[in-house]
Amino acid sequence: MFDVCLLGTGGMMPLPYRWLTALLLRFGGSQVLIDCGEGTQIAMKKKGWSFKPIDTILLTHFHADHVSGLPGLLLTMGNAERTEPLHIYGPKGVEHVVNSLRVIAPELPFSIIFHELIEKEEHFQSGPYMVTAFRVNHNVNCYGYSIAIPRAGRFDASRAKELGLPVQLWNPLQKGNDVEYEGSIYTSDMVMGPPRRGLKVTYCTDTRPTREIVKAASGADIFICEGMYGDDDKDAKAIEHKHMTIREAAMIAKEADPKTMWLTHYSPSLNHPEDYLDDARKIFPRTTMSRDGRTAVLKFDED
Amino acid sequence: MFDVCLLGTGGMMPLPYRWLTALLLRFGGSQVLIDCGEGTQIAMKKKGWSFKPIDTILLTHFHADHVSGLPGLLLTMGNAERTEPLHIYGPKGVEHVVNSLRVIAPELPFSIIFHELIEKEEHFQSGPYMVTAFRVNHNVNCYGYSIAIPRAGRFDASRAKELGLPVQLWNPLQKGNDVEYEGSIYTSDMVMGPPRRGLKVTYCTDTRPTREIVKAASGADIFICEGMYGDDDKDAKAIEHKHMTIREAAMIAKEADPKTMWLTHYSPSLNHPEDYLDDARKIFPRTTMSRDGRTAVLKFDED
Repeated sequence: MFDVCLLGTGGMMPLPYRWLTALLLRFGGSQVLIDCGEGTQIAMKKKGWSFKPIDTILLTHFHADHVSGLPGLLLTMGNAERTEPLHIYGPKGVEHVVNSLRVIAPELPFSIIFHELIEKEEHFQSGPYMVTAFRVNHNVNCYGYSIAIPRAGRFDASRAKELGLPVQLWNPLQKGNDVEYEGSIYTSDMVMGPPRRGLKVTYCTDTRPTREIVKAASGADIFICEGMYGDDDKDAKAIEHKHMTIREAAMIAKEADPKTMWLTHYSPSLNHPEDYLDDARKIFPRTTMSRDGRTAVLKFDED
Repeated sequence: MFDVCLLGTGGMMPLPYRWLTALLLRFGGSQVLIDCGEGTQIAMKKKGWSFKPIDTILLTHFHADHVSGLPGLLLTMGNAERTEPLHIYGPKGVEHVVNSLRVIAPELPFSIIFHELIEKEEHFQSGPYMVTAFRVNHNVNCYGYSIAIPRAGRFDASRAKELGLPVQLWNPLQKGNDVEYEGSIYTSDMVMGPPRRGLKVTYCTDTRPTREIVKAASGADIFICEGMYGDDDKDAKAIEHKHMTIREAAMIAKEADPKTMWLTHYSPSLNHPEDYLDDARKIFPRTTMSRDGRTAVLKFDED
C-alpha cells in the first residue's frame, strides 16, 4: 500500500487554519517528504505519522514557505533517534541552503547526503521509489517531482516448468535475479511477463503551466498541483509571480489525464477554494480542492 | 496600557496543541517580541496582533525552538509593508545566526540592526521600553530579559507657580526637558516628583535557577518563567539539560516576589502542567500555569 498525505495546502505563509503545502509518502516502511515549510513537523505530528522513517526529502525550491521548517524537522528526527543517513534532493545550492539553516541544528545523530539537481529532467531511485525530477517555470530554479512505485510483471510458472527449473529457483528469478542451473544461465525476463502498471504521484507547485508538467502528470494516480489563485482576474498576478490559477491547473490536468487531481498551495487571500470547484470540474471533472491532511491509500490494480 | 501576550507555552518542539514559547509586548504603538520558534507567526496571526509594528526582537539564545520561526516572520513583516529598521538583540553571534537563517529570506524591505549582548548584564532602551538583559545558566550562552515601562514623577504645579514659570513652559518640563525663562535655566527635576512605579515584565527560559533571575524578577508585574518539568524525579534531568522544574521556578518567585508568575516552556512530555499547580502555589501562591495565548493588560497604579 502506498500512503499519500498532503500535510498542508497553504502557499506563501502558514495560517492558523492552513499548514504550508508539503507531501508525505509512505511505502514499505520508507517515507518521502516533499517540501518542509514552517509548521510541517506540527502537521505531521497531528497526522500521527512517524518522523524516524523519513529517508528522503525532496525540495522543490528554496523559498521560505517550502523549506523553513527543515531545521526543526531535522532536530525532531534526531530526537526520534534516527541514525540512518537522510537523503536530501533539491535544486543547485541545496547543500549550502540546508547547511546555512543548520546554524540552529548543527548536531544530528544522522548524516545528510545531498543530491543537487542539475538537468532539466533527472531520474533516480530512493529506497522503493522511482523519482523523476522535472524543472518547472518559477521565478527561481524550481522542480516538480513524480514518485512512482514500479510493479514487476507476472511470474509465468508454466514457462518456468517448461524450462525445467526447480521450484527453489523461482523466487530469485521473480525478484529479478539471474540464476545458474545445470551449467546454463537463466535470466528473470525468461519467466516474467512485461512490467505491470505501478503507482504514481506527481507533485508540482510554484510554476507557470508547462509542457513538462503535462508529461510528468500523464497517467498519474494523483496529480497534486498548485491552485494559487481563484478568480480569473488574477491571471496577470499569476503571470507576474509565476504561479497558476485554478483554471490553468485544470487545463493541465485535462491534457495529462491523471486519475485525480488534488489542488493545493492556495494564496493566503484565497479563503474559500471550494468556490472555484465547479468551474475547475467543468474543465477536469476529477478535481478535488484539498484540505490539510488529505490522505489516500493507493493500491496496485487488481490483476 | 501595556499589553502582554504569551504566544506559546511549549519547549523543545512545537506540538499540534502547543505553540513554542514566545512573548509579544505592545505599548504606545511599538511591539517587542521575545523569541521566535517555529510557528510563532501563526500564533501571532491567530491572536490577531499586527506584524508591522514589531520594532524589536529579543532572542534569548539560538536553540531552534527559540529562533527557527525567524525567517518566516521577517518575510511576513516584509509582506506587511514594514520599511522601518528592525532591532534584533541576542547573545554573541546574533548577526551570524540570523543572517545564516536569512538564506531563505534574503530580500526584505527593511534593514536589520543587530545588537550583540556581551556583558553579564546589559541595559538599553528600545522605543518606549527600558530593557535589562541578564545572562542565565543554560548549556549555551543564554539571556533573560526584563522589559520595563518607566513612569515619570508627578508634576508639582504649585512648585512651578512658586518659581513663577508661565503655564506654556510646564509641558516641556513635564516631558523632562530643560527650559530657559528670563535668563535662568529651569530643569525638569525642579518641578517633577520622584519617578513613580512603572510596569515590568521579566521573561526567562532555558536556565537553571540563579541569583540573577531572583534579582531581575524582583518587583515585576509578571514574571514569566520556564516550568520545563513537573515531577520531582525530573530533578536530575533538569540539572543535566540545564532547565528548571516547576518547583524550582516557584522557589525563585517566592524570593523575587513578583505580582504574579506565569509558567511556560513545558516539556513535550508534560501533557498536563495543571497537575502541578497546587504544589507550586504552596511555594508561591500567585503562580499561573499558562496556556497558549495568555494575555494581560497592565496599567499604571492608581495615583
